[in-house]
Amino acid sequence: MAARKQLKLGAFMRPVSIHTGAWRWPGAWVDANFNWPRLKRLALKLEEGCFDAFFMADHLAVLNMSRDALRHSHTVTSFEPFTLLSALAAVTERIGLVATGSTSFDAPFHVARRFASLDHISNGRAGWNIVTTSNPDAALNFGLEEHLDHDERYRRAREFFDVVTGLWDSFADDAFPRDAGTGTYLDPDRMRALDHRGEFYKVRGPLNIARPVQGWPVIVQAGASEAGRQLAAETAEVIFAAPGNLEDGQSFFRDVKARTAAAGRNPEHLKILPGAFVVVGGTVEAAREKRARLDALVPQANAMASLSIMLGTDAGRFDPDAPLPDDIPETNDSKSGRERAIALGRRENLTVRELANRLGGYGGLSFVGTPETIADGMEEWLETEASDGFNVMFPYLPEGLDDFVDKVVPELQRRGIFRRAYEGTTLRDHLGLPRPANRFFR
Amino acid sequence: MAARKQLKLGAFMRPVSIHTGAWRWPGAWVDANFNWPRLKRLALKLEEGCFDAFFMADHLAVLNMSRDALRHSHTVTSFEPFTLLSALAAVTERIGLVATGSTSFDAPFHVARRFASLDHISNGRAGWNIVTTSNPDAALNFGLEEHLDHDERYRRAREFFDVVTGLWDSFADDAFPRDAGTGTYLDPDRMRALDHRGEFYKVRGPLNIARPVQGWPVIVQAGASEAGRQLAAETAEVIFAAPGNLEDGQSFFRDVKARTAAAGRNPEHLKILPGAFVVVGGTVEAAREKRARLDALVPQANAMASLSIMLGTDAGRFDPDAPLPDDIPETNDSKSGRERAIALGRRENLTVRELANRLGGYGGLSFVGTPETIADGMEEWLETEASDGFNVMFPYLPEGLDDFVDKVVPELQRRGIFRRAYEGTTLRDHLGLPRPANRFFR
Repeated sequence: MAARKQLKLGAFMRPVSIHTGAWRWPGAWVDANFNWPRLKRLALKLEEGCFDAFFMADHLAVLNMSRDALRHSHTVTSFEPFTLLSALAAVTERIGLVATGSTSFDAPFHVARRFASLDHISNGRAGWNIVTTSNPDAALNFGLEEHLDHDERYRRAREFFDVVTGLWDSFADDAFPRDAGTGTYLDPDRMRALDHRGEFYKVRGPLNIARPVQGWPVIVQAGASEAGRQLAAETAEVIFAAPGNLEDGQSFFRDVKARTAAAGRNPEHLKILPGAFVVVGGTVEAAREKRARLDALVPQANAMASLSIMLGTDAGRFDPDAPLPDDIPETNDSKSGRERAIALGRRENLTVRELANRLGGYGGLSFVGTPETIADGMEEWLETEASDGFNVMFPYLPEGLDDFVDKVVPELQRRGIFRRAYEGTTLRDHLGLPRPANRFFR
Repeated sequence: MAARKQLKLGAFMRPVSIHTGAWRWPGAWVDANFNWPRLKRLALKLEEGCFDAFFMADHLAVLNMSRDALRHSHTVTSFEPFTLLSALAAVTERIGLVATGSTSFDAPFHVARRFASLDHISNGRAGWNIVTTSNPDAALNFGLEEHLDHDERYRRAREFFDVVTGLWDSFADDAFPRDAGTGTYLDPDRMRALDHRGEFYKVRGPLNIARPVQGWPVIVQAGASEAGRQLAAETAEVIFAAPGNLEDGQSFFRDVKARTAAAGRNPEHLKILPGAFVVVGGTVEAAREKRARLDALVPQANAMASLSIMLGTDAGRFDPDAPLPDDIPETNDSKSGRERAIALGRRENLTVRELANRLGGYGGLSFVGTPETIADGMEEWLETEASDGFNVMFPYLPEGLDDFVDKVVPELQRRGIFRRAYEGTTLRDHLGLPRPANRFFR
């Protein structure tokens, strides 16, 4: 029997959970934002489940929310990802560690250096999630009143990527003979100053750190726009995608893999991992009921605000205990959001309140069911070329994460579509990605 | 008997050692720049020795050296301090963790956030070494051709300090009620946006991280200039000083403690810790001989270059095996360096080669002797108000560090001038520093 195609699994984490109501779940670790032992415990459990990577979400600001939304939010403050992932590198042995690095609000030299250092400390487990940071609240924390426009952000991101990867190539792998007899620690012929002078950046180099263990840390991206897809096809090795259903997933997968081939790259070297919110129950009904209970913990103000934004109209004027009316006016604001919200309400026959809770909690792709039905769904995405795996989001912590590792992972392993043990030591090993050649040295 | 005044001890570390010849010492860990288990081992040993802090030296560039000096240098590349200290936070329990944060080449928001995060992960053990980064090679890595002048660097540093500490005060200690019943995770009345608009920085805030465990991480500085001393007196809690002898130490101590009092602060809340290079032997002679052997490992080109720079004249034209001649011409370049070099050569009756090796290895304050004579020296500095302790530099690793912990520390403990166990849990506890009040909240 031929080896089966393998799922790749990242864990997309915020310390308390992605779901806005999760901290109110009975037994949830409400203090995890600043409780290091809890984060250590979660990472070790994911490593026990052979996850490819621990992916730390991030923002560069306290987001501009209403006072009421702010009051209910557990995502406002937490560990900075780099310090957290470096600490996790010290207590884990195999799991990949992916952090966000902004191309708008940080210097390429700092970003290159820190990811290289994380890669050395973790012995080859770092990944860089390149984000262009569209958030205007972040701009205000860095002395900028106006945020860059979309096109300029992407041109800047592309140049930033070239500078960072160029800095990673500052030293050949054999640059350090460390020969005590002759006194030669470093061979200057195997070191190169980048001397970059581009549209946005002037950076001399060399980087003051040896080439990363993986050559380059794994390159991750999330952009879904035209410019985002193209940048990913040219540079990314993992895409954090956000399709809402299987058909959208297949269409995105086809498009990006084709762009990757057109860019002269092997499409196998770009892994597409949609975010997936997973709720595990003993029966499908029990799982759905769990999710409804969780969604009901989303504060009403937040939930209705989310629904109103998606519909482009004040949802407060509808009967909360009836389905959405048929005659919701079209607006210019948010056509796709409006359509998605209406379709979701119809498909699952939700009342306005239920729909608001759902969207206020987590509105994207989800698998809600038994370990078997969840594995069925993931297998279908894998087999029908809708994804190479998933960035799993857990409904509440630690219980939702433990459920996945203890119940879903063994089912995926039983089917032969997920590893039972790590085959290699680096994140590139886990993902089946090649080590990039050094542009300056063979 | 009254309790005796206590020494404070930091370890000033580069992974392979401060001394430029150290990597050639038999048994030295030449690969420590990128060998995480070795760094972990060193930090655990320092913690066994009850050191106040592990202090990671840093540069933001491969320094501009001759190819020949570069070839012999083990300090060109190593772990980035933040990733290293975060990893060390995960495997140690008490020792303080001090990193450098540049006020010239980083954003206050990033610096505030990372130090706050390190303080949370380490449960109150972070310290921020404020450096203004005078190195022009670093400027070229951040898109700047010209480096800022000295005065502007210090004005910028002062404003940077105000912004960072203001961001640390973004949240009251009781800002997070996390009440699942009412749904109140965060009390918006206990959060404050800084809204800083100054000469150099515009930063809105709030910081997206709770107030550090220590209120603020411990503030460390090293400037010895007029502007540096004044900034330290106003803001620092630890000074990394560099006096060459006891008299200079006493004079610096008096000056800075007086400035601190004049700034309205308690001089006890500013600890003065000179850097001290320590070589331990079974006899004083054996220790001196060890040091001479170590200095002889400094490559000749580097050693002669160091001496030439200090003298302001080419030292290669002197007889290497004779003492310095009497008639070395004065120059405009480096008057104080010239005088120090000449005085050192005369005091210890060194040949030109020996003097060059000494200066090329480590030219600053040193204690070379038995555990008893080293403890005598340190006690004298403490008792005569020349210092509050030391930032110890080890001649080679791990042996030089182990010697200090296993032999000198017990002697200091026996005399009652150094702790036998940590009294508290935070770096402020170790140093006897108060937790700063929050400027916005009581």
